[in-house]
Amino acid sequence: MSSEFERTGGEEVYEGKIFSVWRETFRHEDGDEATRETVRHPGAVGMVAYDDEVVWLVRQPRESVGMGDLLEIPAGKLDEGGEDPLQTAQRELAEEIGKAAGHWELLHEFFTTPGFADERFFLYLATDLSDRSADPGENERIEIVPWPLSRLHEAIAACHDAKSLIGLLLLAQRLRT
Amino acid sequence: MSSEFERTGGEEVYEGKIFSVWRETFRHEDGDEATRETVRHPGAVGMVAYDDEVVWLVRQPRESVGMGDLLEIPAGKLDEGGEDPLQTAQRELAEEIGKAAGHWELLHEFFTTPGFADERFFLYLATDLSDRSADPGENERIEIVPWPLSRLHEAIAACHDAKSLIGLLLLAQRLRT
Repeated sequence: MSSEFERTGGEEVYEGKIFSVWRETFRHEDGDEATRETVRHPGAVGMVAYDDEVVWLVRQPRESVGMGDLLEIPAGKLDEGGEDPLQTAQRELAEEIGKAAGHWELLHEFFTTPGFADERFFLYLATDLSDRSADPGENERIEIVPWPLSRLHEAIAACHDAKSLIGLLLLAQRLRT
Repeated sequence: MSSEFERTGGEEVYEGKIFSVWRETFRHEDGDEATRETVRHPGAVGMVAYDDEVVWLVRQPRESVGMGDLLEIPAGKLDEGGEDPLQTAQRELAEEIGKAAGHWELLHEFFTTPGFADERFFLYLATDLSDRSADPGENERIEIVPWPLSRLHEAIAACHDAKSLIGLLLLAQRLRT
Protein backbone atom coordinates (compact mmCIF):
# COMPACT_ATOMS: atom_id res chain seq x y z
CA MET A 1 0.00 0.00 0.00
CA SER A 2 2.57 2.50 -1.09
CA SER A 3 1.65 5.70 -2.83
CA GLU A 4 5.13 6.87 -3.79
CA PHE A 5 5.92 6.69 -7.48
CA GLU A 6 8.15 8.23 -10.13
CA ARG A 7 7.46 9.04 -13.74
CA THR A 8 9.66 6.87 -15.95
CA GLY A 9 8.61 8.04 -19.40
CA GLY A 10 5.97 9.63 -21.55
CA GLU A 11 5.02 10.79 -25.01
CA GLU A 12 2.42 13.13 -26.41
CA VAL A 13 -0.05 11.06 -28.43
CA TYR A 14 -2.47 13.85 -29.40
CA GLU A 15 -2.04 17.59 -29.62
CA GLY A 16 -5.23 19.60 -29.63
CA LYS A 17 -6.13 23.24 -29.42
CA ILE A 18 -7.22 23.32 -25.79
CA PHE A 19 -5.67 20.14 -24.42
CA SER A 20 -3.19 17.44 -25.36
CA VAL A 21 -3.10 13.73 -24.48
CA TRP A 22 -0.04 12.04 -23.01
CA ARG A 23 0.72 8.39 -22.48
CA GLU A 24 3.03 8.05 -19.51
CA THR A 25 4.61 5.32 -17.43
CA PHE A 26 5.20 5.37 -13.69
CA ARG A 27 7.10 3.10 -11.34
CA HIS A 28 5.82 2.64 -7.82
CA GLU A 29 8.11 2.14 -4.82
CA ASP A 30 7.38 -1.57 -4.79
CA GLY A 31 8.54 -1.93 -8.39
CA ASP A 32 5.11 -2.11 -10.02
CA GLU A 33 4.73 -0.22 -13.28
CA ALA A 34 1.64 1.71 -14.32
CA THR A 35 0.69 3.26 -17.65
CA ARG A 36 -1.68 6.22 -17.72
CA GLU A 37 -3.35 8.20 -20.48
CA THR A 38 -3.77 11.78 -19.36
CA VAL A 39 -5.48 14.81 -20.78
CA ARG A 40 -3.19 17.76 -20.14
CA HIS A 41 -5.17 20.93 -19.63
CA PRO A 42 -3.92 24.40 -18.67
CA GLY A 43 -6.27 24.58 -15.66
CA ALA A 44 -9.24 26.83 -15.01
CA VAL A 45 -10.82 29.30 -12.62
CA GLY A 46 -14.36 30.10 -11.58
CA MET A 47 -16.07 32.27 -9.03
CA VAL A 48 -19.05 32.45 -6.72
CA ALA A 49 -19.96 36.09 -7.21
CA TYR A 50 -22.76 37.27 -4.96
CA ASP A 51 -24.26 40.31 -3.30
CA ASP A 52 -27.11 40.81 -0.81
CA GLU A 53 -29.75 39.62 -3.24
CA VAL A 54 -28.35 37.28 -5.87
CA VAL A 55 -25.58 34.94 -6.89
CA TRP A 56 -24.48 35.64 -10.47
CA LEU A 57 -24.75 32.56 -12.65
CA VAL A 58 -24.64 31.97 -16.39
CA ARG A 59 -26.39 29.68 -18.81
CA GLN A 60 -24.46 28.55 -21.82
CA PRO A 61 -24.58 25.90 -24.50
CA ARG A 62 -22.14 23.02 -23.96
CA GLU A 63 -21.98 21.39 -27.34
CA SER A 64 -19.55 18.69 -26.15
CA VAL A 65 -22.12 17.17 -23.84
CA GLY A 66 -25.14 17.86 -26.03
CA MET A 67 -26.61 20.42 -23.63
CA GLY A 68 -28.12 23.60 -25.01
CA ASP A 69 -28.34 25.20 -21.67
CA LEU A 70 -26.13 24.37 -18.69
CA LEU A 71 -26.38 26.44 -15.50
CA GLU A 72 -22.88 27.33 -14.27
CA ILE A 73 -20.84 29.78 -12.27
CA PRO A 74 -18.75 32.22 -14.37
CA ALA A 75 -15.51 30.46 -15.29
CA GLY A 76 -12.76 30.21 -17.84
CA LYS A 77 -9.52 28.44 -18.53
CA LEU A 78 -6.07 29.68 -17.71
CA ASP A 79 -3.93 30.99 -20.53
CA GLU A 80 -1.11 28.71 -21.57
CA GLY A 81 1.26 31.55 -20.81
CA GLY A 82 0.95 30.97 -17.09
CA GLU A 83 -1.45 33.79 -16.24
CA ASP A 84 -2.09 34.22 -12.53
CA PRO A 85 -5.36 32.42 -11.56
CA LEU A 86 -6.75 35.44 -9.71
CA GLN A 87 -6.11 37.71 -12.72
CA THR A 88 -7.85 35.18 -14.95
CA ALA A 89 -10.80 35.15 -12.56
CA GLN A 90 -11.01 38.95 -12.56
CA ARG A 91 -10.96 38.99 -16.36
CA GLU A 92 -13.63 36.27 -16.64
CA LEU A 93 -15.94 37.99 -14.17
CA ALA A 94 -15.78 41.15 -16.29
CA GLU A 95 -16.14 39.32 -19.61
CA GLU A 96 -18.93 36.98 -18.63
CA ILE A 97 -21.16 39.08 -16.39
CA GLY A 98 -19.74 42.60 -16.66
CA LYS A 99 -18.77 42.97 -13.00
CA ALA A 100 -15.73 43.78 -10.93
CA ALA A 101 -15.31 42.59 -7.33
CA GLY A 102 -13.76 44.54 -4.47
CA HIS A 103 -13.11 41.39 -2.45
CA TRP A 104 -11.64 38.11 -3.68
CA GLU A 105 -11.01 34.99 -1.65
CA LEU A 106 -9.75 31.57 -2.72
CA LEU A 107 -12.50 29.18 -1.61
CA HIS A 108 -10.99 25.88 -2.70
CA GLU A 109 -8.66 24.20 -5.18
CA PHE A 110 -9.47 20.84 -6.73
CA PHE A 111 -8.92 18.51 -9.66
CA THR A 112 -12.01 18.25 -11.86
CA THR A 113 -11.44 14.64 -12.90
CA PRO A 114 -8.10 13.30 -11.63
CA GLY A 115 -8.62 9.82 -13.08
CA PHE A 116 -7.84 10.97 -16.61
CA ALA A 117 -7.12 14.71 -16.72
CA ASP A 118 -4.73 17.03 -14.88
CA GLU A 119 -7.08 20.03 -14.94
CA ARG A 120 -6.72 21.96 -11.70
CA PHE A 121 -9.53 24.34 -10.76
CA PHE A 122 -9.20 27.48 -8.65
CA LEU A 123 -12.55 28.43 -7.12
CA TYR A 124 -12.92 31.99 -5.81
CA LEU A 125 -15.47 33.94 -3.84
CA ALA A 126 -16.06 37.39 -5.34
CA THR A 127 -18.00 39.99 -3.35
CA ASP A 128 -18.31 43.79 -3.11
CA LEU A 129 -19.46 43.76 -6.73
CA SER A 130 -19.74 46.76 -9.03
CA ASP A 131 -20.74 47.18 -12.65
CA ARG A 132 -18.08 47.20 -15.28
CA SER A 133 -18.66 47.28 -18.98
CA ALA A 134 -18.71 43.78 -20.35
CA ASP A 135 -16.60 42.76 -23.29
CA PRO A 136 -19.07 40.62 -25.20
CA GLY A 137 -16.35 39.47 -27.58
CA GLU A 138 -16.39 35.72 -27.16
CA ASN A 139 -19.44 35.48 -25.01
CA GLU A 140 -22.46 36.16 -27.15
CA ARG A 141 -24.06 32.86 -26.19
CA ILE A 142 -23.72 33.37 -22.47
CA GLU A 143 -26.93 34.36 -20.74
CA ILE A 144 -26.41 36.12 -17.41
CA VAL A 145 -28.61 34.69 -14.65
CA PRO A 146 -28.94 36.70 -11.41
CA TRP A 147 -30.23 33.92 -9.14
CA PRO A 148 -31.98 34.99 -5.89
CA LEU A 149 -30.06 33.85 -2.81
CA SER A 150 -33.40 33.01 -1.19
CA ARG A 151 -33.76 30.23 -3.79
CA LEU A 152 -30.17 28.98 -3.64
CA HIS A 153 -31.24 25.38 -3.03
CA GLU A 154 -33.18 25.38 -6.28
CA ALA A 155 -30.02 26.43 -8.10
CA ILE A 156 -28.16 23.50 -6.53
CA ALA A 157 -30.89 21.09 -7.63
CA ALA A 158 -30.89 22.54 -11.16
CA CYS A 159 -27.10 22.56 -11.53
CA HIS A 160 -25.38 19.66 -13.31
CA ASP A 161 -21.88 21.07 -13.60
CA ALA A 162 -19.35 19.85 -11.03
CA LYS A 163 -17.35 23.04 -10.40
CA SER A 164 -20.57 25.07 -10.07
CA LEU A 165 -22.12 22.59 -7.65
CA ILE A 166 -19.06 22.87 -5.41
CA GLY A 167 -19.29 26.65 -5.53
CA LEU A 168 -23.01 26.76 -4.75
CA LEU A 169 -22.75 24.18 -1.96
CA LEU A 170 -19.87 26.10 -0.34
CA LEU A 171 -21.91 29.29 -0.64
CA ALA A 172 -24.92 27.64 1.01
CA GLN A 173 -22.66 26.48 3.84
CA ARG A 174 -21.22 29.96 4.27
CA LEU A 175 -24.59 31.72 4.25
CA ARG A 176 -25.82 29.46 7.01
CA THR A 177 -22.98 30.33 9.35
CA MET B 1 -28.78 34.48 -27.45
CA SER B 2 -29.93 31.14 -28.78
CA SER B 3 -28.82 27.86 -27.30
CA GLU B 4 -30.27 25.53 -29.92
CA PHE B 5 -27.71 23.80 -32.10
CA GLU B 6 -27.23 20.74 -34.23
CA ARG B 7 -24.18 18.57 -34.77
CA THR B 8 -23.07 18.86 -38.38
CA GLY B 9 -20.05 16.55 -38.42
CA GLY B 10 -17.30 14.89 -36.46
CA GLU B 11 -14.32 12.59 -36.57
CA GLU B 12 -12.38 10.63 -34.00
CA VAL B 13 -8.90 12.11 -33.79
CA TYR B 14 -7.51 9.92 -30.99
CA GLU B 15 -8.54 6.52 -29.72
CA GLY B 16 -7.29 5.62 -26.28
CA LYS B 17 -7.89 2.83 -23.83
CA ILE B 18 -10.21 4.69 -21.46
CA PHE B 19 -11.34 7.62 -23.59
CA SER B 20 -11.25 8.87 -27.16
CA VAL B 21 -11.05 12.40 -28.55
CA TRP B 22 -13.46 13.74 -31.18
CA ARG B 23 -13.36 16.90 -33.21
CA GLU B 24 -16.90 17.93 -34.00
CA THR B 25 -18.71 20.79 -35.67
CA PHE B 26 -22.02 22.31 -34.63
CA ARG B 27 -24.36 24.83 -36.22
CA HIS B 28 -26.34 27.14 -33.99
CA GLU B 29 -29.85 28.33 -34.83
CA ASP B 30 -28.52 31.71 -35.91
CA GLY B 31 -26.21 30.07 -38.45
CA ASP B 32 -22.97 30.38 -36.45
CA GLU B 33 -20.66 27.38 -36.63
CA ALA B 34 -18.64 26.06 -33.70
CA THR B 35 -15.86 23.47 -33.58
CA ARG B 36 -15.27 21.52 -30.38
CA GLU B 37 -12.68 19.01 -29.26
CA THR B 38 -14.26 16.57 -26.85
CA VAL B 39 -12.96 13.77 -24.69
CA ARG B 40 -15.49 10.96 -24.92
CA HIS B 41 -15.62 8.99 -21.70
CA PRO B 42 -17.96 6.15 -20.73
CA GLY B 43 -19.13 7.95 -17.58
CA ALA B 44 -18.59 7.10 -13.94
CA VAL B 45 -20.25 6.48 -10.61
CA GLY B 46 -19.33 7.17 -7.00
CA MET B 47 -20.98 6.93 -3.64
CA VAL B 48 -21.24 8.60 -0.26
CA ALA B 49 -21.28 5.48 1.93
CA TYR B 50 -21.84 6.23 5.58
CA ASP B 51 -23.15 4.78 8.83
CA ASP B 52 -23.69 6.22 12.32
CA GLU B 53 -20.00 6.80 12.89
CA VAL B 54 -18.08 7.25 9.67
CA VAL B 55 -18.17 8.06 6.00
CA TRP B 56 -16.10 5.56 4.02
CA LEU B 57 -13.43 7.27 1.95
CA VAL B 58 -10.36 6.06 0.10
CA ARG B 59 -6.89 7.38 -0.52
CA GLN B 60 -5.27 6.46 -3.79
CA PRO B 61 -2.39 7.55 -5.97
CA ARG B 62 -3.41 9.63 -8.99
CA GLU B 63 -0.39 9.45 -11.23
CA SER B 64 -1.99 11.64 -13.91
CA VAL B 65 -2.02 14.67 -11.62
CA GLY B 66 1.20 13.85 -9.78
CA MET B 67 -0.56 13.12 -6.49
CA GLY B 68 0.57 10.18 -4.41
CA ASP B 69 -2.39 10.36 -2.17
CA LEU B 70 -5.76 11.88 -3.10
CA LEU B 71 -8.70 11.63 -0.68
CA GLU B 72 -11.82 10.52 -2.55
CA ILE B 73 -15.16 8.80 -2.26
CA PRO B 74 -15.25 5.24 -3.67
CA ALA B 75 -15.85 5.50 -7.41
CA GLY B 76 -15.26 3.84 -10.74
CA LYS B 77 -16.02 4.19 -14.40
CA LEU B 78 -18.91 2.63 -16.25
CA ASP B 79 -18.17 -0.32 -18.48
CA GLU B 80 -18.31 0.44 -22.19
CA GLY B 81 -20.94 -2.27 -22.47
CA GLY B 82 -23.57 0.02 -21.00
CA GLU B 83 -23.65 -1.37 -17.49
CA ASP B 84 -26.38 0.09 -15.29
CA PRO B 85 -24.89 2.90 -13.12
CA LEU B 86 -26.38 1.50 -9.90
CA GLN B 87 -24.91 -1.94 -10.58
CA THR B 88 -21.54 -0.35 -11.24
CA ALA B 89 -21.82 1.52 -7.95
CA GLN B 90 -22.67 -1.67 -6.06
CA ARG B 91 -19.69 -3.45 -7.60
CA GLU B 92 -17.31 -0.58 -6.84
CA LEU B 93 -18.45 -0.33 -3.21
CA ALA B 94 -17.67 -4.04 -2.77
CA GLU B 95 -14.37 -3.89 -4.63
CA GLU B 96 -13.00 -0.72 -3.08
CA ILE B 97 -14.11 -0.93 0.54
CA GLY B 98 -15.57 -4.42 0.91
CA LYS B 99 -19.11 -3.30 1.76
CA ALA B 100 -22.65 -3.85 0.55
CA ALA B 101 -25.42 -1.31 1.11
CA GLY B 102 -29.06 -2.07 1.92
CA HIS B 103 -30.22 1.36 0.78
CA TRP B 104 -29.18 3.22 -2.36
CA GLU B 105 -30.33 6.65 -3.46
CA LEU B 106 -29.29 8.76 -6.45
CA LEU B 107 -28.05 12.00 -4.89
CA HIS B 108 -27.17 13.94 -8.03
CA GLU B 109 -26.03 13.64 -11.64
CA PHE B 110 -23.51 16.02 -13.15
CA PHE B 111 -20.86 16.54 -15.81
CA THR B 112 -17.36 16.56 -14.35
CA THR B 113 -15.94 19.03 -16.86
CA PRO B 114 -18.42 19.89 -19.61
CA GLY B 115 -16.10 22.33 -21.36
CA PHE B 116 -14.00 19.56 -22.89
CA ALA B 117 -15.28 16.11 -21.80
CA ASP B 118 -18.64 14.36 -21.93
CA GLU B 119 -18.07 12.38 -18.71
CA ARG B 120 -21.34 12.12 -16.81
CA PHE B 121 -21.16 11.24 -13.13
CA PHE B 122 -23.84 9.43 -11.12
CA LEU B 123 -23.46 10.16 -7.41
CA TYR B 124 -25.21 7.84 -4.97
CA LEU B 125 -25.88 7.72 -1.28
CA ALA B 126 -25.24 4.23 0.17
CA THR B 127 -26.44 3.41 3.67
CA ASP B 128 -27.45 0.36 5.74
CA LEU B 129 -23.92 -0.96 5.19
CA SER B 130 -22.72 -4.50 5.85
CA ASP B 131 -19.39 -6.25 5.38
CA ARG B 132 -18.76 -8.14 2.22
CA SER B 133 -15.49 -9.72 1.25
CA ALA B 134 -13.48 -7.35 -0.87
CA ASP B 135 -12.02 -8.33 -4.19
CA PRO B 136 -8.62 -6.70 -3.95
CA GLY B 137 -7.87 -7.52 -7.57
CA GLU B 138 -7.24 -4.14 -9.10
CA ASN B 139 -7.25 -2.16 -5.92
CA GLU B 140 -4.08 -2.93 -4.05
CA ARG B 141 -3.11 0.73 -3.89
CA ILE B 142 -6.40 1.89 -2.44
CA GLU B 143 -6.25 2.65 1.25
CA ILE B 144 -9.64 2.51 2.96
CA VAL B 145 -10.28 5.55 5.19
CA PRO B 146 -13.19 5.39 7.66
CA TRP B 147 -13.57 9.11 8.33
CA PRO B 148 -15.47 10.13 11.51
CA LEU B 149 -18.68 12.01 10.71
CA SER B 150 -17.93 14.31 13.63
CA ARG B 151 -14.95 15.60 11.61
CA LEU B 152 -16.71 15.81 8.25
CA HIS B 153 -15.70 19.43 7.73
CA GLU B 154 -12.04 18.46 7.97
CA ALA B 155 -12.59 15.93 5.19
CA ILE B 156 -14.10 18.67 3.02
CA ALA B 157 -11.12 20.91 3.67
CA ALA B 158 -8.67 18.08 2.90
CA CYS B 159 -10.46 16.91 -0.27
CA HIS B 160 -9.24 18.15 -3.65
CA ASP B 161 -11.29 15.90 -5.92
CA ALA B 162 -14.41 17.47 -7.46
CA LYS B 163 -16.83 14.51 -7.34
CA SER B 164 -15.85 13.76 -3.73
CA LEU B 165 -16.29 17.38 -2.66
CA ILE B 166 -19.81 17.36 -4.06
CA GLY B 167 -20.58 14.13 -2.21
CA LEU B 168 -19.18 15.36 1.10
CA LEU B 169 -20.88 18.75 0.86
CA LEU B 170 -24.24 17.11 0.09
CA LEU B 171 -23.71 14.77 3.03
CA ALA B 172 -22.95 17.70 5.34
CA GLN B 173 -26.13 19.39 4.14
CA ARG B 174 -28.17 16.25 4.75
CA LEU B 175 -26.77 15.60 8.23
CA ARG B 176 -27.74 19.11 9.28
CA THR B 177 -31.38 18.67 8.36
